[in-house]
Amino acid sequence: EIVDAIAAALGNGPLRGRRIVVTSGPTHEPIDPVRYIANRSSGAQGAAIGAALAALGAEVIFVTGPAEVPPPAGVEVVAVDTAAEMRAAVHEALPADAAIFAAAVADWRMKTARAEKIKKTPDGLPDLALEENPDILAEVAAGPDRPGLVVGFAAETENVVENATAKRARKGCDWILANDVSPATGIMGGRDNAVTLITDEGAEAWERMGKDAVARRLAERVARALGPVGAA
Amino acid sequence: EIVDAIAAALGNGPLRGRRIVVTSGPTHEPIDPVRYIANRSSGAQGAAIGAALAALGAEVIFVTGPAEVPPPAGVEVVAVDTAAEMRAAVHEALPADAAIFAAAVADWRMKTARAEKIKKTPDGLPDLALEENPDILAEVAAGPDRPGLVVGFAAETENVVENATAKRARKGCDWILANDVSPATGIMGGRDNAVTLITDEGAEAWERMGKDAVARRLAERVARALGPVGAA
Repeated sequence: EIVDAIAAALGNGPLRGRRIVVTSGPTHEPIDPVRYIANRSSGAQGAAIGAALAALGAEVIFVTGPAEVPPPAGVEVVAVDTAAEMRAAVHEALPADAAIFAAAVADWRMKTARAEKIKKTPDGLPDLALEENPDILAEVAAGPDRPGLVVGFAAETENVVENATAKRARKGCDWILANDVSPATGIMGGRDNAVTLITDEGAEAWERMGKDAVARRLAERVARALGPVGAA
Repeated sequence: EIVDAIAAALGNGPLRGRRIVVTSGPTHEPIDPVRYIANRSSGAQGAAIGAALAALGAEVIFVTGPAEVPPPAGVEVVAVDTAAEMRAAVHEALPADAAIFAAAVADWRMKTARAEKIKKTPDGLPDLALEENPDILAEVAAGPDRPGLVVGFAAETENVVENATAKRARKGCDWILANDVSPATGIMGGRDNAVTLITDEGAEAWERMGKDAVARRLAERVARALGPVGAA
């Protein structure tokens, strides 16, 4: 890490000259002024990835929802709350050489968030009618500003490789980093991660390791995939 | 504050010998293993109240949801996640001389939280059928273990005094500390609070002040209301 930091400081890391967008953290989707739908992403894996890419010399645009873990040093932080805000920030940050979508974006939001606090009334429960959030990963992967390398994440609780492989095809991204977030694994909110990298060559299971180690390994793979600047 | 701390340390604060239950923070109501319904309570006001009561010598049982602000020193912390867990912890902590319900308990929870992550499917949106959470304040105020002083909070976005006065009657509690949590006030998640104390004598608006100052004023009122131990 010290070597990476020195390399980055000297400006000769393998990702020098590369602009990489990283999304991280959960999104919060408001129900009314005081309530919201959230998810258990701590932002730890995304922050580690941002740090690892910056350590290899990349210019990192770090688009983060309300995470527990602070954003890493050495990145450009764009703080957002909702999926809609994250989408706008990502499009704003493009074009880029690569985009890594580590955020746990809410799949749904309220069809209509209320302007006033919903009150408990005797005549029944509120209707939380939902609508789908934009699919930022699929949009960017199919969009005119598509980075050369687009990486998605899949948080699964069952049939991890199968679901993640299907997700890679469906989203049109290059890689999916899949992990098992069943409560029993302790991964969501924990320090370790056990991921499987899905590429066009198949599934590659990485041993369970710290989220920092996952991030460094991913950053090295990104550097290898992008190659030297100007070599494309 | 230093005087209070010394008084508490010497064991001669006005709440010495009093056992007080304080609830604080939000509750999180699971939707599935990764998603939940939350609210914007930071737990700052509840933590300040716990600290202020302890500073006056009270034995404080501090039942807290997943708050941003850490619990104060000098209290007995009981950490919970959901409203159902908070209810159980409060009943467990009774009997007590007073109970102060500063937590922002979720009014609703999922009728059935899913054991597996809900997947996005082409055939429609998930049905978030809700049911009401137990009303811990009303239950304790009407229960066999009712403390001599029961204090509720009302977070309102409109008609604050009117709504809070109605809430006091409906819940059967002694006092309501009402505040305006409209986003424009910056109170929810902020440092200040502007509260109105509703008692059987009417509404008493306190000037806007720090949450610590609100807590100290409330703690002094509680000490006055309870009187010296053995004087009842």
